[in-house]
Amino acid sequence: MATSATPVAIIMGSRSDWPTMKLAADKLDQLGVAWEAKVVSAHRTPERLVQFATGAKAAGYKVIIAGAGGAAHLPGMAASMTELPVLGVPVKSKALKGMDSLLSIVQMPAGVPVATLAIGEAGAANAGILAAQILALSDEALAERLAAFRVAQTESVAESVED
Amino acid sequence: MATSATPVAIIMGSRSDWPTMKLAADKLDQLGVAWEAKVVSAHRTPERLVQFATGAKAAGYKVIIAGAGGAAHLPGMAASMTELPVLGVPVKSKALKGMDSLLSIVQMPAGVPVATLAIGEAGAANAGILAAQILALSDEALAERLAAFRVAQTESVAESVED
Amino acid sequence: MATSATPVAIIMGSRSDWPTMKLAADKLDQLGVAWEAKVVSAHRTPERLVQFATGAKAAGYKVIIAGAGGAAHLPGMAASMTELPVLGVPVKSKALKGMDSLLSIVQMPAGVPVATLAIGEAGAANAGILAAQILALSDEALAERLAAFRVAQTESVAESVED
Amino acid sequence: MATSATPVAIIMGSRSDWPTMKLAADKLDQLGVAWEAKVVSAHRTPERLVQFATGAKAAGYKVIIAGAGGAAHLPGMAASMTELPVLGVPVKSKALKGMDSLLSIVQMPAGVPVATLAIGEAGAANAGILAAQILALSDEALAERLAAFRVAQTESVAESVED
Amino acid sequence: MATSATPVAIIMGSRSDWPTMKLAADKLDQLGVAWEAKVVSAHRTPERLVQFATGAKAAGYKVIIAGAGGAAHLPGMAASMTELPVLGVPVKSKALKGMDSLLSIVQMPAGVPVATLAIGEAGAANAGILAAQILALSDEALAERLAAFRVAQTESVAESVED
Amino acid sequence: MATSATPVAIIMGSRSDWPTMKLAADKLDQLGVAWEAKVVSAHRTPERLVQFATGAKAAGYKVIIAGAGGAAHLPGMAASMTELPVLGVPVKSKALKGMDSLLSIVQMPAGVPVATLAIGEAGAANAGILAAQILALSDEALAERLAAFRVAQTESVAESVED
Amino acid sequence: MATSATPVAIIMGSRSDWPTMKLAADKLDQLGVAWEAKVVSAHRTPERLVQFATGAKAAGYKVIIAGAGGAAHLPGMAASMTELPVLGVPVKSKALKGMDSLLSIVQMPAGVPVATLAIGEAGAANAGILAAQILALSDEALAERLAAFRVAQTESVAESVED
Amino acid sequence: MATSATPVAIIMGSRSDWPTMKLAADKLDQLGVAWEAKVVSAHRTPERLVQFATGAKAAGYKVIIAGAGGAAHLPGMAASMTELPVLGVPVKSKALKGMDSLLSIVQMPAGVPVATLAIGEAGAANAGILAAQILALSDEALAERLAAFRVAQTESVAESVED
Repeated sequence: MATSATPVAIIMGSRSDWPTMKLAADKLDQLGVAWEAKVVSAHRTPERLVQFATGAKAAGYKVIIAGAGGAAHLPGMAASMTELPVLGVPVKSKALKGMDSLLSIVQMPAGVPVATLAIGEAGAANAGILAAQILALSDEALAERLAAFRVAQTESVAESVED
Repeated sequence: MATSATPVAIIMGSRSDWPTMKLAADKLDQLGVAWEAKVVSAHRTPERLVQFATGAKAAGYKVIIAGAGGAAHLPGMAASMTELPVLGVPVKSKALKGMDSLLSIVQMPAGVPVATLAIGEAGAANAGILAAQILALSDEALAERLAAFRVAQTESVAESVED
Repeated sequence: MATSATPVAIIMGSRSDWPTMKLAADKLDQLGVAWEAKVVSAHRTPERLVQFATGAKAAGYKVIIAGAGGAAHLPGMAASMTELPVLGVPVKSKALKGMDSLLSIVQMPAGVPVATLAIGEAGAANAGILAAQILALSDEALAERLAAFRVAQTESVAESVED
Repeated sequence: MATSATPVAIIMGSRSDWPTMKLAADKLDQLGVAWEAKVVSAHRTPERLVQFATGAKAAGYKVIIAGAGGAAHLPGMAASMTELPVLGVPVKSKALKGMDSLLSIVQMPAGVPVATLAIGEAGAANAGILAAQILALSDEALAERLAAFRVAQTESVAESVED
Repeated sequence: MATSATPVAIIMGSRSDWPTMKLAADKLDQLGVAWEAKVVSAHRTPERLVQFATGAKAAGYKVIIAGAGGAAHLPGMAASMTELPVLGVPVKSKALKGMDSLLSIVQMPAGVPVATLAIGEAGAANAGILAAQILALSDEALAERLAAFRVAQTESVAESVED
Repeated sequence: MATSATPVAIIMGSRSDWPTMKLAADKLDQLGVAWEAKVVSAHRTPERLVQFATGAKAAGYKVIIAGAGGAAHLPGMAASMTELPVLGVPVKSKALKGMDSLLSIVQMPAGVPVATLAIGEAGAANAGILAAQILALSDEALAERLAAFRVAQTESVAESVED
Repeated sequence: MATSATPVAIIMGSRSDWPTMKLAADKLDQLGVAWEAKVVSAHRTPERLVQFATGAKAAGYKVIIAGAGGAAHLPGMAASMTELPVLGVPVKSKALKGMDSLLSIVQMPAGVPVATLAIGEAGAANAGILAAQILALSDEALAERLAAFRVAQTESVAESVED
Repeated sequence: MATSATPVAIIMGSRSDWPTMKLAADKLDQLGVAWEAKVVSAHRTPERLVQFATGAKAAGYKVIIAGAGGAAHLPGMAASMTELPVLGVPVKSKALKGMDSLLSIVQMPAGVPVATLAIGEAGAANAGILAAQILALSDEALAERLAAFRVAQTESVAESVED
């Protein structure tokens, strides 16, 4: 794995998670933060997971966004193999609507944190924003873009309940 | 890891899981099945997990019993790295009483099964029995001990509700 | 019931469970394991259940896959009457989305295990794979097919998030 | 099984359920209804269950009260083998506090009803009262005792919140 | 309210519950048991509820089937004002899918039982069957029809999983 | 029932709810609002409930605080028989820790509202405060006491995490 | 913010909540109570929230109805900054169907109450009615309209289950 | 608020949260990261919250750890008023064991993320570690301490299940 200047890696357990996880990418685009996305299945490609997670820091990533559904082990296992911050997105599952994904991601034991966001699209979008908030701590230009984004977000909320 | 004649490996995420997981060992003892137990933390010792799970078959194990609590990734991650049957025991957790452990273990995606048992001690005991049931398919003597165990169990259930 | 060489029996509480349980059969087909499927309702045909379960071993079955929804008693009751491993599939129910099925199947008391899989189609598919994993312990050719299946599964997971 | 004049049978999955189920017996005593109690484990003594349930009507029972915890199959399986009304009491379980017992008992499929009461002691007491209500439909003297019991119950509720 | 020879009253909180509760009526029709159905809202027509429940016994009813959804108070409140057996059907609610209805109906305090059935249509159908089971205790002809119904039900369950 | 000048009635399903409901009374005392408390069981004393609720307005009450646990019908049934605001307090139940009480109280159908507070003691205290907030809309002196109470509450929150 | 004679403010976290919250407005219209509605997002427009809530009493409002979904902080935060009664409506959320909204709104700590209604449209309608019930305590004409509304509601409930 | 060189602020809704939140401080101490802790109640001291959150960045903080229980609004409201990363710790609540706290914190709408950790002590400890992971992205010395901490953590996990 060559060293990369891309600060954010977006990984997900299955290609079917992409419609959800794309919202993280969209927010990063909006905030001018580069990202790379790939499918890394904790269960079907554990070796790929090990290689990715143990090499993520050396590859130049700063923040990892990991989305998965059901018995969602990807975020926690990635977190177990890197000291980079891992942001976990519980993808909405078929039967239990993401409650299983949420508990599988958030209930990590002391020692290995996963920064967990909301179930589904809102969580994915917020993972993008949170990644930017973290990177902005040492990137003044990004901090300004982020501040502007927040101002614009506030201004976009019209008081009127109807058009 | 040297080849072992021990058919059952019992792994658990933390030493604090042993009081629960010991019930699996007890049942195996009762049924005359050898076992080895060790702490393998998916999150704090991921490398140990990889070594254990990828080498489990070559080491001579036939069945893996894995217990964990909270965001319980150990059974599913072990299952992702071996073709041996993995039996998962959701250890009762502090806040959510094992509901998180259960969902984290049982809700595996298609492709990588974990045979999940009940939350807590009953589940651990049953993991021991289930391991024996699996091994008995190709071990006549064990099958007979198992049958005797079941008969004895049935006979031990007195009809009277009081002593 | 004549002795059968078919190693896996797939039973289910209702014909309406077949679209789910068919995924177990599909995986067994893929792995070259013979199966037979039939409707056995714990509640509407208890006698059929008793005959099936008490005779399953003598009939030559090695593994029983049992799927049911709601107050899902089929897997546990089958397990109570045989020493063969019973794999339970919680079929998604209408109101509670399979949470009732899951708890009814997995929360077995100590003494009579049911190897429980995920709710719905993923669980059914995994029951097929798990049955093969169990049978492969004493069937080298199947073990090789299973290994090949797992390799192919891993290889099928493309890294790219889009086509 | 000899024909019995005892109208109510109280069965339970384990002797450890008796402290709960005893409250059903207490209410029946209070209302002058005879009962018999025995341990019948759906999972550990399935044959005893079949014999009991299929013979219950011939044995002279009118109503069956069945209590069980966890994957509580006893009430539903008894109901599947008799046309007598079966009243189910979800016994409070260790990890999930009886939510598993409740769903395992109440979520019966169309065709085989179980009259389910509340989790734990309140449910057991009410099973006793409900059995009496059912029997009172064809027993005037019992109907009068029941009416008196209800009146006394109402009168026992003092308005004052403190002694 | 004139004395009626109709043994079963089906009440429900809202006309929108009828498509569910109709299944109780259908089963009663099948079993040759007469019924009457009416809308009695615990919350919107409390006076009608009081009149109905306090007068139900005198009106000649033997069993009351009560269906309601959400904060489902109808079955429990009816039960508080009559000594007739009350069977409660938790109607599936919009947001919580009947889990609120179930808990509101089943978790009655000691003293006033409601015989609770499954959420939704299966529960309604079973309320009809249970009412018949109760009435059959003192009606031989009905007991025979019920037995025949159960036999037919068992025979209707084909073993084949496909047509 | 004689006309009373007491603005707040606190009713509860059982004397065992008083240790919880007392916190409502305590807050009302603190805010200088008179109250009366009595046990009114929806299920064991339905007639008392009807008399209380239908007469509450004429008796001079302005706000009703109703606490109950399990299948908690008291608040909703009181609300169905009065146009006074009814504040519902879900008392913590044994098995389900008040989740049943909460859903039984809050999920009222359109037409008959219950103002529901938190489970247990916090909810009871807040019912007292909310009653005062409602009464303060037409009682300037109370509004001032309430404002002072809130200021004092804010001031009592020390920043320091330790003494 | 100019002083207003409008007694009820309806605020909501997002314009997408209006289809739900409109039912509160409809009931207020029916009862002849004036209202104003606006979007106030606790998270995206916290300053607007502070201004609204701290100024609500001075602006002449008497009751605040606040609807929000998911991590629904709007009702509780409004309540923390005013002594006016705040009625909270848990809007149905995508993944968890409003269970998250409900718990976020109702589980307020002692000191700051939110009068919580049912999830979704029923809750919104009831918030409108409850606001009127509160205002009617000091508005005889409204009290009469409310009484008439309740009578009409009762009369509109036909006994017949079908047209 | 004077500019501070302390990078981490730990805030909590109540002094009673400190025994939990102290674990975050302990981990920060272990990793050589300075912190300040204070009680900021979203509901009882909303003004203090506004002042803290809007001024946090100017005050020199880099990361905010916020713990709260029940209707836990503190983390989300802090996040709404700052662009600093906010880490949320769901404190275990009395009745619902922190499930309410978790959902109130994690289910934030798109636009305002809260990085949510596990319920209770494990979550608090992990908030401390995660804060360090974030700060380490631009602090090489801390990155090395963090790496050493993780190595030590791994080494501390003995394989043996007993002493």
